Amino acid sequence: MDAFARLETTIADRRNADPASSYVASLFARGRGRIAQKIGEEATETVIAAMGDDPAKIVPEAADLLFHLCVLLADAGLCLDDVRAELDRRDGLSGLAEKAARPR
Amino acid sequence: MDAFARLETTIADRRNADPASSYVASLFARGRGRIAQKIGEEATETVIAAMGDDPAKIVPEAADLLFHLCVLLADAGLCLDDVRAELDRRDGLSGLAEKAARPR
Amino acid sequence: MDAFARLETTIADRRNADPASSYVASLFARGRGRIAQKIGEEATETVIAAMGDDPAKIVPEAADLLFHLCVLLADAGLCLDDVRAELDRRDGLSGLAEKAARPR
Amino acid sequence: MDAFARLETTIADRRNADPASSYVASLFARGRGRIAQKIGEEATETVIAAMGDDPAKIVPEAADLLFHLCVLLADAGLCLDDVRAELDRRDGLSGLAEKAARPR
Repeated sequence: MDAFARLETTIADRRNADPASSYVASLFARGRGRIAQKIGEEATETVIAAMGDDPAKIVPEAADLLFHLCVLLADAGLCLDDVRAELDRRDGLSGLAEKAARPR
Repeated sequence: MDAFARLETTIADRRNADPASSYVASLFARGRGRIAQKIGEEATETVIAAMGDDPAKIVPEAADLLFHLCVLLADAGLCLDDVRAELDRRDGLSGLAEKAARPR
Repeated sequence: MDAFARLETTIADRRNADPASSYVASLFARGRGRIAQKIGEEATETVIAAMGDDPAKIVPEAADLLFHLCVLLADAGLCLDDVRAELDRRDGLSGLAEKAARPR
Repeated sequence: MDAFARLETTIADRRNADPASSYVASLFARGRGRIAQKIGEEATETVIAAMGDDPAKIVPEAADLLFHLCVLLADAGLCLDDVRAELDRRDGLSGLAEKAARPR
């Protein structure tokens, strides 16, 4: 199984665990605002790593960002396949034309 | 091919195109700071969509965020497989213990 | 008059101007989501400037951030004096105790 | 004394305190990356409050954002007067013309 599929499975498995012992469950328990907050935090950490000298430091931040993005998707009844479908829809469009076609 | 693999292939293909006609090429041409800025912008749009009433609006923002994350990874000589490897490394760890084990 | 007072006066003056010719009016016309988006963008630019080598580049980003923060406050029927009152309320509290006392 | 001046004085006073007992000192001790991270976090909290139903919730987040912005300025050898000077420099410029004139 792909690492992203495993990630989504893990999130689904832990969603209803005890928030005291599962970080995933604690995020769902604290709700959408907390999950959104984590997206902002991890994106900021990714930006800071991106501006630093060591590319390897980008990887754990990107993983944190993707992890919390998958939690957000799950909280909203969505999953990475919805994002894949959106990317497929855009595929074939190109360059600046592609950007212009994005929903705003 | 998976949508994410296609996305990374498209980014690699367009990277050296004319920045005047390719959004991807224009991002690479403007450099790391601009790419990092886009991560922050798209994360903010994802947060705003997350706080709104329509879950469907999260999808295009998540796609934008992933798109720019893949551009950042490529600019740093990395790719989603590096993020997958990091997620695999964490797999098996669980709950709050998992969070504690993350590189900071 | 203090530069911040002048900034708030300017924002109030231009709020109902023609959005086609006033950036301030265009922000109010596009609404809360757009104003919030700008907070995220300018904060990201501030973070990027903070991680760079030239402290002087932080100043215009901090000014942009404060400008858009004042627009947000005005859009919500608030102003910098409300922020000053909050800071005064916290004053006297100290160190980590202060942080613990902040509304969450 | 104005609340912002008091804030900057408090930050200067605590800067060299024991990081174990002063939140301000702990920020300076952890360094620029941590301070920048807090700008991103507080900006995200401001965005989330901005998208909510209760304008009063924007005030403490705006205060947190300004607090950490003042810490960043101090860490870079700057202060709010530098931001005021930048705002004064822009004053007189108007609307979209003003925006076009901003340093990027």
